[in-house]
Amino acid sequence: MGKARLEAFSDGVLAVAITLLVLDLHVDPSGEESLGAQLRHEWPSFAAYLLSFSIIGVIWVNHHALFALATRVDRALLFYNLLLLMWVTTIPFTTSTLASFLRSGGSDTRWAVVLYGVSMEGMGVSFTLILAYMLRHQLMARPVSQAESKAAVRRYGLGTLVYPSVMLVGLVWPIAMLVVYGGMVLYYIAEQTPILPSETEAAADGT
Amino acid sequence: MGKARLEAFSDGVLAVAITLLVLDLHVDPSGEESLGAQLRHEWPSFAAYLLSFSIIGVIWVNHHALFALATRVDRALLFYNLLLLMWVTTIPFTTSTLASFLRSGGSDTRWAVVLYGVSMEGMGVSFTLILAYMLRHQLMARPVSQAESKAAVRRYGLGTLVYPSVMLVGLVWPIAMLVVYGGMVLYYIAEQTPILPSETEAAADGT
Amino acid sequence: MGKARLEAFSDGVLAVAITLLVLDLHVDPSGEESLGAQLRHEWPSFAAYLLSFSIIGVIWVNHHALFALATRVDRALLFYNLLLLMWVTTIPFTTSTLASFLRSGGSDTRWAVVLYGVSMEGMGVSFTLILAYMLRHQLMARPVSQAESKAAVRRYGLGTLVYPSVMLVGLVWPIAMLVVYGGMVLYYIAEQTPILPSETEAAADGT
Amino acid sequence: MGKARLEAFSDGVLAVAITLLVLDLHVDPSGEESLGAQLRHEWPSFAAYLLSFSIIGVIWVNHHALFALATRVDRALLFYNLLLLMWVTTIPFTTSTLASFLRSGGSDTRWAVVLYGVSMEGMGVSFTLILAYMLRHQLMARPVSQAESKAAVRRYGLGTLVYPSVMLVGLVWPIAMLVVYGGMVLYYIAEQTPILPSETEAAADGT
Repeated sequence: MGKARLEAFSDGVLAVAITLLVLDLHVDPSGEESLGAQLRHEWPSFAAYLLSFSIIGVIWVNHHALFALATRVDRALLFYNLLLLMWVTTIPFTTSTLASFLRSGGSDTRWAVVLYGVSMEGMGVSFTLILAYMLRHQLMARPVSQAESKAAVRRYGLGTLVYPSVMLVGLVWPIAMLVVYGGMVLYYIAEQTPILPSETEAAADGT
Repeated sequence: MGKARLEAFSDGVLAVAITLLVLDLHVDPSGEESLGAQLRHEWPSFAAYLLSFSIIGVIWVNHHALFALATRVDRALLFYNLLLLMWVTTIPFTTSTLASFLRSGGSDTRWAVVLYGVSMEGMGVSFTLILAYMLRHQLMARPVSQAESKAAVRRYGLGTLVYPSVMLVGLVWPIAMLVVYGGMVLYYIAEQTPILPSETEAAADGT
Repeated sequence: MGKARLEAFSDGVLAVAITLLVLDLHVDPSGEESLGAQLRHEWPSFAAYLLSFSIIGVIWVNHHALFALATRVDRALLFYNLLLLMWVTTIPFTTSTLASFLRSGGSDTRWAVVLYGVSMEGMGVSFTLILAYMLRHQLMARPVSQAESKAAVRRYGLGTLVYPSVMLVGLVWPIAMLVVYGGMVLYYIAEQTPILPSETEAAADGT
Repeated sequence: MGKARLEAFSDGVLAVAITLLVLDLHVDPSGEESLGAQLRHEWPSFAAYLLSFSIIGVIWVNHHALFALATRVDRALLFYNLLLLMWVTTIPFTTSTLASFLRSGGSDTRWAVVLYGVSMEGMGVSFTLILAYMLRHQLMARPVSQAESKAAVRRYGLGTLVYPSVMLVGLVWPIAMLVVYGGMVLYYIAEQTPILPSETEAAADGT
């Protein structure tokens, strides 16, 4: 089974989800506040927009890099990929919820933070499942040693522990969570580790 | 006529429809209820979201598997495919209607159930029509015997009887319908029957 | 310049526009009317949805057939294609306007009819412009004689006279316009005339 | 790394963003005003729709022409491209804000003008960054001399100075800004300068 349509459908869902985020930005020309004041009060919407756009963007880059390594896909992988896309499509909702509770500033903000964290965690876990499945079923373009497999899955598996930890920070101080997530995105953009370690590194790691 | 654009356009419509489902999820930060209480009261929206996402996902997997078998498409098939896509695009509407009536809980809920069932049935019938058309006009990559054709069409044709039956359950007990539909999706994900039976099975079946 | 991205972008815009039509379908669970009564009162939304879905579907089939004949595209053609897509993206707006005025039934309904007719006419004219440009600049896969060119452009040019005529009917009796447009779509689905006449027909026509 | 998915994802985001613009067009059938009067009062929405559609269209043509020159993409380029797409997805928001403030006509209209100008400038700068990166890292299909590189980057770099200048006009007279932006789009559609100058021109320019 070819991977072209899996990639095309995923690109479609990611493109729609990343663009729908903009529907949560709006100002009211008939409001009593000036436009400048409205934009200032709406800062959580803009911050959440920027963060969620970046996170979906990073997911797309990861998805691109991962499936570039695949030669073929099977039926089960289509469903693992749908699981990832399901979490991605929840992001416009959790982003909008987070922004509106940050704006209103009530005590429930921390539950909005948890909700946002859950959709991030769902994505992280799904992505790790896809990677592990592809490695276990040898869907990769080149043979991958067990040591390499382990190193790659461990790396992404560790990532799935980071999201809940950051969420704990957010329970106490929501804005700090936005900042840490933002830092994680910047770190990810800057770092260059490929999804699969080179064979030399893997050999060193596996001893 | 190549099948690439039919697949690309279908991927586009399916991707937009599956992502638009999220627009029906929302909470109100200025409401009197806490976020937790709102999420609990909104459970029909989340259940309907999950179910409809899974159903469109399964349709996509089926569509993918079916057109992977085709070598070419003709003009009539483009219109049969548009019929399928038309039913798919009604799902965000029927999902949203079902969720809102489940939430309000009035006696009209069962008509919302019928509406939802109609869009499922429309999809099922359209899919069977596409399959039958492709088999009758020999658009498949390999020659398909009459016995194989019959077995495949019968299998999907039977599926189109299941939806109205489940709908009858929903008229009495709407939540049961959600559960049965959900079970059907899980069954479908787990089972491995290909769209066309292998030639051996078909021969056995055709005697 | 390859035609792949022109096709991909057009498929994207057509897929989003055709799916956004569903956003105009909604019922109100808290309304005083029963769901059945609401669905009956909303019939203009469903009729307009069905008609506009079919029209965009036909445009997609036409676009598919036309660009299947092209070997390459040039810069000017990209802009003619954008003109077509611009008219396509207005359809969710003109459809929604037509449906809401049909529902409210005031005397302004006929202006909503004109608005709808304008977006159809804009599409028809743009499509004819694309066809004429491709023929004039020999972007077709095979050499096309002047007689063939004339026949093809004349046929689509005639189509652009039909829309305003039907609109005149709609000014007097809006529902009749929906019916005639619907009939046109059905006629188009049934007929088999290719975009370019075969060379024999063209020779006969050109004498 | 192949460029196919970068193009497919960009086509998706551009197609969704250009089509979402239509969500800002609407009339109210229950309003006291006639449809004709509403359409007249809504002229800023239509003008802004037309302008933003054209601008995203031009961006797509530019993106198409630029990546047609590339043979491959790297990880950094994916992120530069995401930066461009982020600015593109803000356009439905800045367009809607501009239109609503033009309609209400208050003194804040000029800040809506600034907001609109910022999203244009963001796109222009991102596009220049992509071009410069591709040239600096020799991702182009043919070797590009330093003189050619400089000429191309300088040309697009100059473009990024035009947007803020036009914005200054808009601060004083918002409608003039729409007209000048519209003129720029028409000029761009008419002119034929390729992204990279021919080698002869570049040699002349580099002396």
